[in-house]
Amino acid sequence: MSGDPTAPVGEDVLLARAYLVRVAEPPAPAVSHLVELLGPVEAAARIRGGADLGPHVGAEVGARRYDDRSATDLAAARALGARLLVPEDPAWPTAAMAGFAGLPRHAEWVAPLALWVRGPASVNGLAATEARSVAVVGSRAASGYGKWVARDWSASFADAGLTVVSGAALGIDGEAHRGALAADGTTVAVLACGLDRAYPPSHGRLLEAIGSRGLIVSEYPVGAVPAKHRFLVRNRLIAALSTGTLLVESGRRSGAARTALAAQELGRPVLVVPGPVTSALSVGNHQLLRKGYATVVGSAADVVGDLAPLDGRAPLDDPARDGAPAPTDGLSGAAVRVHGALRGHAPQTVPALARESGVLPRTVVGALDELVAAGLVVPDGERGWSRSV
Amino acid sequence: MSGDPTAPVGEDVLLARAYLVRVAEPPAPAVSHLVELLGPVEAAARIRGGADLGPHVGAEVGARRYDDRSATDLAAARALGARLLVPEDPAWPTAAMAGFAGLPRHAEWVAPLALWVRGPASVNGLAATEARSVAVVGSRAASGYGKWVARDWSASFADAGLTVVSGAALGIDGEAHRGALAADGTTVAVLACGLDRAYPPSHGRLLEAIGSRGLIVSEYPVGAVPAKHRFLVRNRLIAALSTGTLLVESGRRSGAARTALAAQELGRPVLVVPGPVTSALSVGNHQLLRKGYATVVGSAADVVGDLAPLDGRAPLDDPARDGAPAPTDGLSGAAVRVHGALRGHAPQTVPALARESGVLPRTVVGALDELVAAGLVVPDGERGWSRSV
Repeated sequence: MSGDPTAPVGEDVLLARAYLVRVAEPPAPAVSHLVELLGPVEAAARIRGGADLGPHVGAEVGARRYDDRSATDLAAARALGARLLVPEDPAWPTAAMAGFAGLPRHAEWVAPLALWVRGPASVNGLAATEARSVAVVGSRAASGYGKWVARDWSASFADAGLTVVSGAALGIDGEAHRGALAADGTTVAVLACGLDRAYPPSHGRLLEAIGSRGLIVSEYPVGAVPAKHRFLVRNRLIAALSTGTLLVESGRRSGAARTALAAQELGRPVLVVPGPVTSALSVGNHQLLRKGYATVVGSAADVVGDLAPLDGRAPLDDPARDGAPAPTDGLSGAAVRVHGALRGHAPQTVPALARESGVLPRTVVGALDELVAAGLVVPDGERGWSRSV
Repeated sequence: MSGDPTAPVGEDVLLARAYLVRVAEPPAPAVSHLVELLGPVEAAARIRGGADLGPHVGAEVGARRYDDRSATDLAAARALGARLLVPEDPAWPTAAMAGFAGLPRHAEWVAPLALWVRGPASVNGLAATEARSVAVVGSRAASGYGKWVARDWSASFADAGLTVVSGAALGIDGEAHRGALAADGTTVAVLACGLDRAYPPSHGRLLEAIGSRGLIVSEYPVGAVPAKHRFLVRNRLIAALSTGTLLVESGRRSGAARTALAAQELGRPVLVVPGPVTSALSVGNHQLLRKGYATVVGSAADVVGDLAPLDGRAPLDDPARDGAPAPTDGLSGAAVRVHGALRGHAPQTVPALARESGVLPRTVVGALDELVAAGLVVPDGERGWSRSV
């Protein structure tokens, strides 16, 4: 089922993307921009040919540009039952990745050039599940309380039809995947290494189960090792592939909290499980709440409710879904969410829009500026805002 | 020390207030309004004399109006080492009670007509401590976790110089008083019965300790029983006598959560201790956080910081303190707080003002309307607000 040969993407595009995603260590903003300008085949040809494409592209590709392993990587993936999912594929999670478009380029939070995927959920790709998914993240050194919440709630998410996305790490990640699998739900593991690697080693069987019943995803080719910086880069994909991110437990300094901040940047809701103030593993959670970056949740039902479509449609406006251009094309993820929250409503205030869109009040204010500039929203009444059409 | 004979309040005022606070079961908005209009002595004389003062006053005083026990009540209080604190007394907590002035009268959240007080802290009355105090409230059926937080944090509050205010109930209340006493701090118990009653009975020794080292306060005369509705009415005083209210633990329906809402109405910060989502005793806390009515706190230091004076002055503007009229006289508690948060600052946005004042964003917006109407605040820049003078 995976590695579907009917995918209507030319071999030249697959080879070009396989080449690009290996020579430009993610995230690669300059190479991504070049691909936007020239398309993947032309961009790959110029990089491979040694053309002078400016200092930024040069720095991103380095000497690797002359070492084209694309055919080998694609073959290795096929041997593993995996395939390369590319933006040209209908199964590409276009709406999920649209969040990156609104971010300042210097933030380096760019969309991936391609994704290696393995598992039955890849039949429809990530696009089918992205509208109803939740990233469940937290500390590797989790407490019994945190592990219980991750596993129990993830089973409830699966029951409610949500895909559970996580990073397959020890602690919270593993329990989230296990909870979803136990409830016969769909779960997606985003790795910081090649799809052939079992990392952490003790999660070999768990990864096998996810790969055979859900989906394993990575930006890194077969054989790539889980270098430390790749975990941080990987975290942005966990956030991007989810409608919202649930932080179960995090200490004072935490990679999971970074995933939550990535979700915030992408304009997605960040939900936080409170815990005892006596637990060092809840300190990061409570800090995030105190900073106003997140919403507290008291039950799995709270999470499902908070991530439910705003009015029967997916919470992410997806211009790719019907082919017609959407009025919010090119706007930031936050602006798209705020625009969605204004749908069919009387004039809304900033606090009301923040509540309904899951976007921070200060970000709502910026998003309204953006929407007014785009002619989509007008001030309406004393403190309200409405759609202009 | 208590029952200080040097208090410069005439016996006629004390007798009138003692009469009024007994014949009009609190809260008595119509009688309170009459006292504002006529003064306590004249108002008491007219009520006692059976004058037709309209249906509202009539309903509030009922047949009790012909049963003047004021002399007996004052004598009973003196015998107990207690006295009647009245608004005419310099020790009256004027700033604390000013919060009630901004509330709609129909809400019945009116200031007390007088307070029976007992304990050494009454030398300076409540006015001296009100600027730095915290209400610590929560369930009677508290968990070990909640009790630990209440006692440990209250000791820290005492160390930081904050007066700990609570209701002397079982569970969280008792632990709060005990924590403050253990740290040699000042603690105030607000009762729903006469100062002679030990309620709950098992807290007899605790109440003795509070009365001898802190302060016991009640609207009810010696001998009054703790009727159920009096607990709800009493809760508004716990909120009013505190700079902010800390909710330690609360279940789905909770009187303590009601105290928190009273604090919110009064424009005071509501702080909430998070707990395990697996505990039914934290459900009320998490609901309050989700509704946006409260701020989460992760440590005693968070609470002390959140309740600290804005810039070295008390967080409540007190027109009574220097005798001169303040520009914010007659404004709501929320408006006074927002005005305070604008002190010495560059233009502030609504979210920033909400953060700094501890007032809800939607209440901030209303408070800004009020301040603009009063000529105290002007819009400044794109989304900012500044003081006009």
